[in-house]
Amino acid sequence: MTKTIIGVMGPGDGATNRDIKLATKVGNLIAKKGWALLTGGRNFGVMDAASKGAHEAGGLTIGILPSEDGSDHSEHLDVCIRTGIGSARNNINVLSSDVIIACGTGIGTTSEIMLTLKAKKPIILLHQTDNALAFIGEMAPYKLNVVDTPEEAIHRTADIL
Amino acid sequence: MTKTIIGVMGPGDGATNRDIKLATKVGNLIAKKGWALLTGGRNFGVMDAASKGAHEAGGLTIGILPSEDGSDHSEHLDVCIRTGIGSARNNINVLSSDVIIACGTGIGTTSEIMLTLKAKKPIILLHQTDNALAFIGEMAPYKLNVVDTPEEAIHRTADIL
Amino acid sequence: MTKTIIGVMGPGDGATNRDIKLATKVGNLIAKKGWALLTGGRNFGVMDAASKGAHEAGGLTIGILPSEDGSDHSEHLDVCIRTGIGSARNNINVLSSDVIIACGTGIGTTSEIMLTLKAKKPIILLHQTDNALAFIGEMAPYKLNVVDTPEEAIHRTADIL
Amino acid sequence: MTKTIIGVMGPGDGATNRDIKLATKVGNLIAKKGWALLTGGRNFGVMDAASKGAHEAGGLTIGILPSEDGSDHSEHLDVCIRTGIGSARNNINVLSSDVIIACGTGIGTTSEIMLTLKAKKPIILLHQTDNALAFIGEMAPYKLNVVDTPEEAIHRTADIL
Repeated sequence: MTKTIIGVMGPGDGATNRDIKLATKVGNLIAKKGWALLTGGRNFGVMDAASKGAHEAGGLTIGILPSEDGSDHSEHLDVCIRTGIGSARNNINVLSSDVIIACGTGIGTTSEIMLTLKAKKPIILLHQTDNALAFIGEMAPYKLNVVDTPEEAIHRTADIL
Repeated sequence: MTKTIIGVMGPGDGATNRDIKLATKVGNLIAKKGWALLTGGRNFGVMDAASKGAHEAGGLTIGILPSEDGSDHSEHLDVCIRTGIGSARNNINVLSSDVIIACGTGIGTTSEIMLTLKAKKPIILLHQTDNALAFIGEMAPYKLNVVDTPEEAIHRTADIL
Repeated sequence: MTKTIIGVMGPGDGATNRDIKLATKVGNLIAKKGWALLTGGRNFGVMDAASKGAHEAGGLTIGILPSEDGSDHSEHLDVCIRTGIGSARNNINVLSSDVIIACGTGIGTTSEIMLTLKAKKPIILLHQTDNALAFIGEMAPYKLNVVDTPEEAIHRTADIL
Repeated sequence: MTKTIIGVMGPGDGATNRDIKLATKVGNLIAKKGWALLTGGRNFGVMDAASKGAHEAGGLTIGILPSEDGSDHSEHLDVCIRTGIGSARNNINVLSSDVIIACGTGIGTTSEIMLTLKAKKPIILLHQTDNALAFIGEMAPYKLNVVDTPEEAIHRTADIL
């Protein structure tokens, strides 16, 4: 009865134009599937773009904010969770998501990919750098899902659920 | 644009029949106002009752679970946040709520009331014991809202928002 | 082989002169017993006083700071743990202590007393207000240790260990 | 006046013999410098080995445990901090250390390396795989310290402090 939650993780400040474009589309497709979207909740980068994409398709958007007051939350959130635990909230992002889609390569994103592997949860890798893929592949104790498009990410997610 | 979130905190195992009845009604009225409900998310006590009441009125229900897997979540939740941080999650309950309604007296509830006072957020006290009211009143650095009915709790909440 | 850790919790800004005096003595006696002292780690109130008392007797002092940078740490700490999780760190104070001594009545202190009861750990109450004692007594699922002097607090702690 | 704390992070279950040998030596040299050692605190892998090495040289050893009861703590710890926040404690490891030495390549270790880069704190990389070095180098917003021996790790740490 609780909603299926798909986490979309990706770079904030360092997001590329392509990361943003892909994240917007991924968010959009998640909403169209009727799944809720969960992100780190801030008002820039992949977090913001995915939330925007999901919102435009009428989806439910959840942000897990690092700060106590959540003042930097994306305007595309329905539910704003203010944790006050800083980067430690990355583990809540992972644990609360049924499937995690990493969209783009970044520092915080990689910490979340590692916490996902640690928690033995399903992860889908979209638009990672070659170095990231080589390294994450080396680390993963189970088969990774590496995809090239938002559509593929959603198909793979549906297969897993 | 983000939803107004009202937190309802109260005893779990130790909830009285009256706590349960009041919490169900409070949850129901929160949903009718169009606010989202946030609780500790487990499948018993005030958390469960408030979620049930809100769900029956078509409201959005959010649970902030202490465990990593959230296996003991209320069946009346839409959004299940699995924190994996145990009782430390009580502070997330407080920070994420725009107004906190304490319904019934208990150990965890009191920790949340204290964290609310610490965070200088608005709190409404419903169905507290005399000892609780005397003590919380002594602790509070600002005026408390002590109410007798769910309806009064909702009116007071609307005034604060 | 790990050190016995005694937590001393009490008011910060709101500490009375008597709270400070008692906390200094409690810290001092803890150190003389060869136990490590754990506090919330900041540079004022009971946290600071207990650390000062323990340090003067050559004891090991540990502070669990709420902030990321710990810039407001007591100068009487040996070990400064910077949690970055704000008031959620109160639960770490409780879980890491073998016995908790509450010295003085306050908001944060009460949240820690409640988390101690929740975790079913031993707690000793020193210099609490009448309202606090009446309420905590009502909440406690097991016998509380209410004491009048630092010496009594230490004797009771030794009995428990 | 508070002790300088050096964090040593590395694989647990997946630690290689060489990781263990290096970690033991690093812990030993940290203690000889008079610095305190901080690890994830469990009774296996790099955490345990570094603590053992430091303890044998008379150093102070601190463990930040993920569990509530800390029952799986290394026997070589002086100070056992029981966080009850699971892998979210990785960020406390990072924030509480003045310098972080990553010894060996692993999932949890990489999450801690990323959190270190996020917090803009100094990190020293010892015995990382080629893929790890290539990827972490790509991620780092500042110069990394890559070393080949425990002695070099300690010299570099001393330079940073």
